Amino acid sequence: MTNSEKLNKMANAIRFLSMDAVEKANSGHPGLPMGAADIATVLYTRFLKHDPKNPHWPDRDRFVLSAGHGSMLLYSVLYLSGYEDITIEEIKNFRQLGSKTAGHPEYGHAAGIETTTGPLGQGLGNSVGMALGERILNAKFGDDLVNHYTYVLAGDGCLMEGLSQEAIALAGHLKLNKLIVFWDNNNITIDGAVSLSDNTDQPARFAASGWNTLSVDGHDQEAIAQAIEQARASDKPTMIACKTTIGFGAPGKAGTNKVHGSPLGAEEIAATRKALGWEDAPFVVPADILDAWRVAGLNAARKRQDWEKRLAVTDADTRAEFERRIRGDLPGGFEQAIADYKKKLSAEKPKVATRKASEMALEIINGVVPETIGGSADLTGSNNTKTSQTKPITPDNYGERYVHYGIREHGMAAAMNGLTLHGGIIPYSGTFLTFSDYCRPAMRLSSLMGIRVVYVMTHDSIGLGEDGPTHQPVEQLAALRAIPNHLVFRPADVVETAECWELALKSTKTPSTIALTRQNLPTVRTDHIEENLCAYGAYELATATDDAKVTIFATGSEVEIALNARAALEKKGIAARVVSVPCFELFEQQSPAYQQALIGNAPVKIAVEAAISLGWERFIGEDGVFIGMKGFGASGRIEDLYKFFGITAEAVVEAAEAKLQKSA
Amino acid sequence: MTNSEKLNKMANAIRFLSMDAVEKANSGHPGLPMGAADIATVLYTRFLKHDPKNPHWPDRDRFVLSAGHGSMLLYSVLYLSGYEDITIEEIKNFRQLGSKTAGHPEYGHAAGIETTTGPLGQGLGNSVGMALGERILNAKFGDDLVNHYTYVLAGDGCLMEGLSQEAIALAGHLKLNKLIVFWDNNNITIDGAVSLSDNTDQPARFAASGWNTLSVDGHDQEAIAQAIEQARASDKPTMIACKTTIGFGAPGKAGTNKVHGSPLGAEEIAATRKALGWEDAPFVVPADILDAWRVAGLNAARKRQDWEKRLAVTDADTRAEFERRIRGDLPGGFEQAIADYKKKLSAEKPKVATRKASEMALEIINGVVPETIGGSADLTGSNNTKTSQTKPITPDNYGERYVHYGIREHGMAAAMNGLTLHGGIIPYSGTFLTFSDYCRPAMRLSSLMGIRVVYVMTHDSIGLGEDGPTHQPVEQLAALRAIPNHLVFRPADVVETAECWELALKSTKTPSTIALTRQNLPTVRTDHIEENLCAYGAYELATATDDAKVTIFATGSEVEIALNARAALEKKGIAARVVSVPCFELFEQQSPAYQQALIGNAPVKIAVEAAISLGWERFIGEDGVFIGMKGFGASGRIEDLYKFFGITAEAVVEAAEAKLQKSA
Repeated sequence: MTNSEKLNKMANAIRFLSMDAVEKANSGHPGLPMGAADIATVLYTRFLKHDPKNPHWPDRDRFVLSAGHGSMLLYSVLYLSGYEDITIEEIKNFRQLGSKTAGHPEYGHAAGIETTTGPLGQGLGNSVGMALGERILNAKFGDDLVNHYTYVLAGDGCLMEGLSQEAIALAGHLKLNKLIVFWDNNNITIDGAVSLSDNTDQPARFAASGWNTLSVDGHDQEAIAQAIEQARASDKPTMIACKTTIGFGAPGKAGTNKVHGSPLGAEEIAATRKALGWEDAPFVVPADILDAWRVAGLNAARKRQDWEKRLAVTDADTRAEFERRIRGDLPGGFEQAIADYKKKLSAEKPKVATRKASEMALEIINGVVPETIGGSADLTGSNNTKTSQTKPITPDNYGERYVHYGIREHGMAAAMNGLTLHGGIIPYSGTFLTFSDYCRPAMRLSSLMGIRVVYVMTHDSIGLGEDGPTHQPVEQLAALRAIPNHLVFRPADVVETAECWELALKSTKTPSTIALTRQNLPTVRTDHIEENLCAYGAYELATATDDAKVTIFATGSEVEIALNARAALEKKGIAARVVSVPCFELFEQQSPAYQQALIGNAPVKIAVEAAISLGWERFIGEDGVFIGMKGFGASGRIEDLYKFFGITAEAVVEAAEAKLQKSA
Repeated sequence: MTNSEKLNKMANAIRFLSMDAVEKANSGHPGLPMGAADIATVLYTRFLKHDPKNPHWPDRDRFVLSAGHGSMLLYSVLYLSGYEDITIEEIKNFRQLGSKTAGHPEYGHAAGIETTTGPLGQGLGNSVGMALGERILNAKFGDDLVNHYTYVLAGDGCLMEGLSQEAIALAGHLKLNKLIVFWDNNNITIDGAVSLSDNTDQPARFAASGWNTLSVDGHDQEAIAQAIEQARASDKPTMIACKTTIGFGAPGKAGTNKVHGSPLGAEEIAATRKALGWEDAPFVVPADILDAWRVAGLNAARKRQDWEKRLAVTDADTRAEFERRIRGDLPGGFEQAIADYKKKLSAEKPKVATRKASEMALEIINGVVPETIGGSADLTGSNNTKTSQTKPITPDNYGERYVHYGIREHGMAAAMNGLTLHGGIIPYSGTFLTFSDYCRPAMRLSSLMGIRVVYVMTHDSIGLGEDGPTHQPVEQLAALRAIPNHLVFRPADVVETAECWELALKSTKTPSTIALTRQNLPTVRTDHIEENLCAYGAYELATATDDAKVTIFATGSEVEIALNARAALEKKGIAARVVSVPCFELFEQQSPAYQQALIGNAPVKIAVEAAISLGWERFIGEDGVFIGMKGFGASGRIEDLYKFFGITAEAVVEAAEAKLQKSA
């Protein structure tokens, strides 16, 4: 068997594992793994720096299967390379409940799956963050510790998604030359030929954003290898257009949309076995071919051994710092710095917008947590995400800590996922809360993967004023609270803002959104400053002077309104208390006893939030009063708007009195 | 005064109205109107086919200010051209509550505002739908009735948003040569120079997607005019890169980000008056300049008069049909066709997936409503959006009724908004429900504008099976229900699906989402077939044989589970009823009496929906039982998943019995 024959068989191993697994599951996507098998073989056996036995090694090359439906490609190469998580039994259990081999690659299911993909374009977006993360850590720790590539396989779907443009333009701008994208150019989408919906000249499009572009026959392994060599030598990110045949090898279905997302069927599989000269039974890889794959995996591991040697001779402080960052632990001084800062605040009681309070908290945090990387989608001065420590990262200097993501909210969110997935970095970045809608598919993936990403969302209500309803969130708080495993914070003042930031940074398995005001708010939290009360999700901020007749629940800017209403009610002899609710999700994690005690049994329960009411029934019950928004906002001055929409202390008092009278 | 001097002064009128309005409001964006004033002057006075006194004339050219923050540009030209809605008083009330001159252009506030813009990229996305709508109606009604251009002003923000790529690629593919985009190339974003975050060669990028591109000095009115002439002669859509100076004329701030989004200040305004030789007081336009603008408006109107003459000689049937479509009225036979179809279904009782039921309903609808335009974001066979009447629209044939939008969910949604805004068309199109997240910013705008767009969202739960959690919606129903003015339908069978479609098409001021299953469902609605019970939002589908001890609320695929649970409970002697809840929003519009009667007072209330519980408290109260999802789904077979997540009739029965025992 010539070397070329062996390499073909190595690729065919991917093809047969994939088609047989899809057939057994009676569900899945054989077309991509069969079409891209040669690319994956070249990459995994000749270029990828990885160690199947130490798969989490931090200086490994990353491979992102952005076209996640081709999951069997990834599972096949992981099994063939010798990753212990992906056994042949797992391959046989493809797409079954509880298997590691889910329909789409799920981060955390198995080592070697660098990110969850499936929603198209997301993997490409993540890869920009990974490649940027690599450069940032390289600037800090040098070539000896951090120096690797990020490879991506993207399909036509990924490239049609708008997100891809944001990713491409950002990577081109930042000259992320260690990012190499293979475009699986197979001319086929689910509906049929790509030409049904697209005629874009993809290489020209990438070139327009500063990419190096190459074109190869995606079934010519030598040509692919040469292109990878050229890409690695480029000073720009590279897109390699690989002309492939979807479902390569299947005589009756290759090159058509019939092979995209359905099992081939027994007949076509038999024909493919014949056409490719593969005589083995399903899930059996000939010993010599499996050996060749395993040897490639072992050879690749040598680079890890070299790296370990370099790490061993790194000075102790640098090594400790590198390892701390990679573990994701916060530095020792973090909690004390926050505690000292809160103490100072409770004495000074500044009246500032919570977006400013967030900047003040970040000034402390960025001083003690060197791995934070800030940014904004072109709203730096509005999101207050830049502090004295964070200067812009540029193509000439990756050693800084601020990313001008451009007007690319979705690309920003996907890149932040990639920064976290890379390891060693805690990304946070901002836009207006209403534009969380643009980020939402990537935010959902932060939650599904369970990773630490902090979304700073300012201008969090009609309180932004004149920009009007397009810019005023009303449903976004509820919509974000709807995402599982996502902490949505809405702090009421400087102290709560500091506490929410502390919680967000400590939350290593759950992303956070911090919703912040444009308008100034007084410091309302002056007691129990030594404890992080926001950690309870909701807590009593102001007690009633007697048995409470009224409980007012509020968040963010409406806590001030609640406190004013309480004062007015107390003046009228109506005992009232205020509960601040900075985080629904953390409140739901408290004991039933805490929850019941906090909600209490005052005859009147009122919630105040300048947003729609969805979700507040859990606090105020069926019979409660909600003071907030019933529909979209309007353009006008903030004072006019709060009055117009009836979100005032007077309205709360009136509602409380009416309700008390009714129940009397 | 030479003609060139006059034209300069006409542009300066825009500049001063804009800067003075922003100054008076103490809020707003003067930079764009000042920079793009020459473009707008050339377009409105020399090219735009419109009639300020008959602004809704259907064959007018459309102008979309995609960079919506520059709203004063649009308000200025509407005032200057003689649109009655925008008086000088409205200009003075810029950004005040209740004014027509909101912070961003709001569709419906004033004639001449073709769409709501502000969220960047959306206007460009809309314009693709408008330009496509023009071609579709042109193919049907000919040049005499429909033959106009769509012009867009887009800024760097619009072009950085990923949505723009989807719009550009779709327009290029469809060869929408009557679409002309001005790129306000001013090199400035909010954070500073564009080069902080982008180096894209925009003309090369547009050219890569099949656009004609031109470049001009955006302050040279003759050059702009020549470019427009060339663009109008092109067989491709055209992007005209207009090199402009943001805040043109302001000596101290022009060309910087200081003039983007803040008032200039008294001093800079005085300096600008001096620099541009403008001696008039704020809001005063010299009579000769205003006259010149008004004369241009009157001249433009002549084309409407010619068009009226052509309409007058159009044959009566064609004219009636054209006018019906433009009014947005459904054809006469619509209701009867649905009624007949439902009758047939109730007799045949097919067991099909609701996505298939949707296709069956569409087969009826598309047969009687010729103005529907279907489509899918490359999931045609999965979304079941194509019927026998709808063949693909291609660059060679705009006379068909199906759009292959490509893998561009966001661009599809924005284009559908544009199709509806154009008039004469009812767009519907599909993707998976989980990918409604990708469409969300455009869906929000459908709701805010209050326009008829139908989103077909299939694979609406874990019921999609093996594709796993990335493809399984769990929070999307709640998140869509959170959007004000948006009908979210989740029908339970073929009959409800037909009823929901009927309601969606009749809902001219509210967009709809129809959530549909992948899996087969029995026909459960066999009674009261003559009435559209879905119109109530929720109704009793199965009564209890005695005073109900248990009420089970359910939607979509879980109605079958609810009915099975009811049967099992009744068998055990526990009286139970089932309420189907196809649309929360319509239920909320019913009388309190209807709502209370329907919810009833059974001691146990249970809701079943294969999604998170948010919002269900309104039906089941604080003490109710929710059977559904608590977090993300998983990859596996549908039967395994429903069992694993405990969404079964057995679980409902068990919960009901436990609850009854507890309360006994």
